Amino acid sequence: MSILKLLLTLVVGIVTFSSNAVAQEKKVRVQMGWAFPSTTGLLGPTQTRLVEMLRTNSGGSIDVKGYEPGALVPASQYFDAVSNGTLDMAWTVAGFWTGKDIAFAMYASVPFGPGVGEYLAWIKHGGGEQLMKALHAKYNVEVIPCGVISPEASGWFRKEIKTLDDLKGLKMRFFGLGANVMQKMGVSTQLLQGGEIFQALQMGTIDATEFSMPVMDLTLGFHQVAKFYYFPGWHQQSTINELLISKKKWAEFSETQKSIIRTSCDATMLQQFAEGEALQFGAMKEIQSKGVKLMRWPQEFIDAFEKAWIEVAAEEAQKSAEFKKAWDSYSEFRKNYAIWKDLGYLK
Amino acid sequence: MSILKLLLTLVVGIVTFSSNAVAQEKKVRVQMGWAFPSTTGLLGPTQTRLVEMLRTNSGGSIDVKGYEPGALVPASQYFDAVSNGTLDMAWTVAGFWTGKDIAFAMYASVPFGPGVGEYLAWIKHGGGEQLMKALHAKYNVEVIPCGVISPEASGWFRKEIKTLDDLKGLKMRFFGLGANVMQKMGVSTQLLQGGEIFQALQMGTIDATEFSMPVMDLTLGFHQVAKFYYFPGWHQQSTINELLISKKKWAEFSETQKSIIRTSCDATMLQQFAEGEALQFGAMKEIQSKGVKLMRWPQEFIDAFEKAWIEVAAEEAQKSAEFKKAWDSYSEFRKNYAIWKDLGYLK
Repeated sequence: MSILKLLLTLVVGIVTFSSNAVAQEKKVRVQMGWAFPSTTGLLGPTQTRLVEMLRTNSGGSIDVKGYEPGALVPASQYFDAVSNGTLDMAWTVAGFWTGKDIAFAMYASVPFGPGVGEYLAWIKHGGGEQLMKALHAKYNVEVIPCGVISPEASGWFRKEIKTLDDLKGLKMRFFGLGANVMQKMGVSTQLLQGGEIFQALQMGTIDATEFSMPVMDLTLGFHQVAKFYYFPGWHQQSTINELLISKKKWAEFSETQKSIIRTSCDATMLQQFAEGEALQFGAMKEIQSKGVKLMRWPQEFIDAFEKAWIEVAAEEAQKSAEFKKAWDSYSEFRKNYAIWKDLGYLK
Repeated sequence: MSILKLLLTLVVGIVTFSSNAVAQEKKVRVQMGWAFPSTTGLLGPTQTRLVEMLRTNSGGSIDVKGYEPGALVPASQYFDAVSNGTLDMAWTVAGFWTGKDIAFAMYASVPFGPGVGEYLAWIKHGGGEQLMKALHAKYNVEVIPCGVISPEASGWFRKEIKTLDDLKGLKMRFFGLGANVMQKMGVSTQLLQGGEIFQALQMGTIDATEFSMPVMDLTLGFHQVAKFYYFPGWHQQSTINELLISKKKWAEFSETQKSIIRTSCDATMLQQFAEGEALQFGAMKEIQSKGVKLMRWPQEFIDAFEKAWIEVAAEEAQKSAEFKKAWDSYSEFRKNYAIWKDLGYLK
């Protein structure tokens, strides 16, 4: 066979192979910042799984690597870093950005809010996600809801809280809209990232903290310092995680890659929800075995928190046009949903 | 440029292009049977969306096409067709196969069962999915949980049911384990596929039917024949859809393609759950506007159904070793979960 013939055979072979196969995707390199230490219960594995899912399902064309909080930029600065394009992606929670606009909290978790099903129904089919995307777009950020958990615990306290007065003057780490409620109860709140809380609690910089569900809280070691663990987490009955993507990076993906990212985020929501529900009872038993008391707020406290929340929602709607838009949409959806909630479920 | 040089340039170009791109997937052709007419509310769009998701996320390498029930084989024969390899895939519900083993019903919906979160926790992290896969594997079928909905309605009746005696002698379409409960109440049950029910109700072959949630029931037109619509669906507080895949076809997929299928099923669960929660209140209001009365079972009925269910579960555990395995695993999980259910949620 002449060299000419050999080459012709090669070319025909390669072209034939290509036409039998599917379109090739260009490799896109992505750095993803994680909001939580990878050792954090549930959240850590969810972050890792998302990265693996994107790599595997794209056949490696989404060449993504995840980074611990602080390895690229501090977790508290992810939003700005993605906004200005210095970070490609971050997996985090919208409630961290309330310093920019309190409306961000509506896309993370709402006090006395609905269960996961109703919340996702509003996000996915009640206009919530469009409003969330529009708010993020104002800051040049692409966003996809990318995780969800059922209720959190209400928080860890060094001392038993016997009366509402016991809350007054406490210094407490608190997240999202629940923080505004706690302020009305006389608590002084601050928002620390996951990795910063334990030390603050140990040093006495704070007297109490809420963070997340029992399995996450357990891995952060709060039981070593605080012996009263309160339920239910009225301030976060369901909480959504978000994937932030810089506009510049988003434009690099093909339509196939964009679809893989969206699908992976929906799958992440499902997996995290199921795993979150599965891991709590074991963690609660372990926390009990470490000498921590599992407490339930007396109804008097729940009523007081809810009353304060109604005031907070009305006040924030006055202050932020973006919050008002989200709050009105959410409230209208819940009003309509009520007939289904009332008849569809076993009591 | 000589032909030799031109060809060399071509070869080098193609090889370079290939090495920059990701691994190519071989195209696999797949025929998927749908259990529900594509016009059925929620279920129809979910089936269509799953097919599109698989095609798009695989860049077309999973070359899948969906078929209406009956177009390839009747929906009631999907399991056998996938088992013997004459059908590649089917999107359906495990509760249709109770004629083979009552245990299949445990992987579809359990009367007086938990909400979506707790049910998925058992399936995904409590051993449910492994048992489900082992049961299907006995029949040479690969299975992936691939959809979930929150509560169904309890059913449509031509006449108001005022006493438990009114149930006796009724002929009713009924699905899964709830059928065994209804038999204890004196109801004569049969399982018809979605597309067959309306005619049976109209012809008087059956006096009553349950099918699914309000939005699905609405598209099947039951309101034209039956004017009493009962809630809550105690027999199906959450229901899982399954993707059946023939072992032969499963072996043709690459690891990337298998991962895309699993991820798409999880994403389908999330999307269907959220959409299901969003669509019911509108459908209920439309059903009311057509002159149908929305009824809630008096507590006396709920108690009688639950009592019968406890008997049914014990009896089936005696009869089927596979059911007993599933029931024991599920019951143990629910017992452990109780501490979280009790403390974690707002009442």
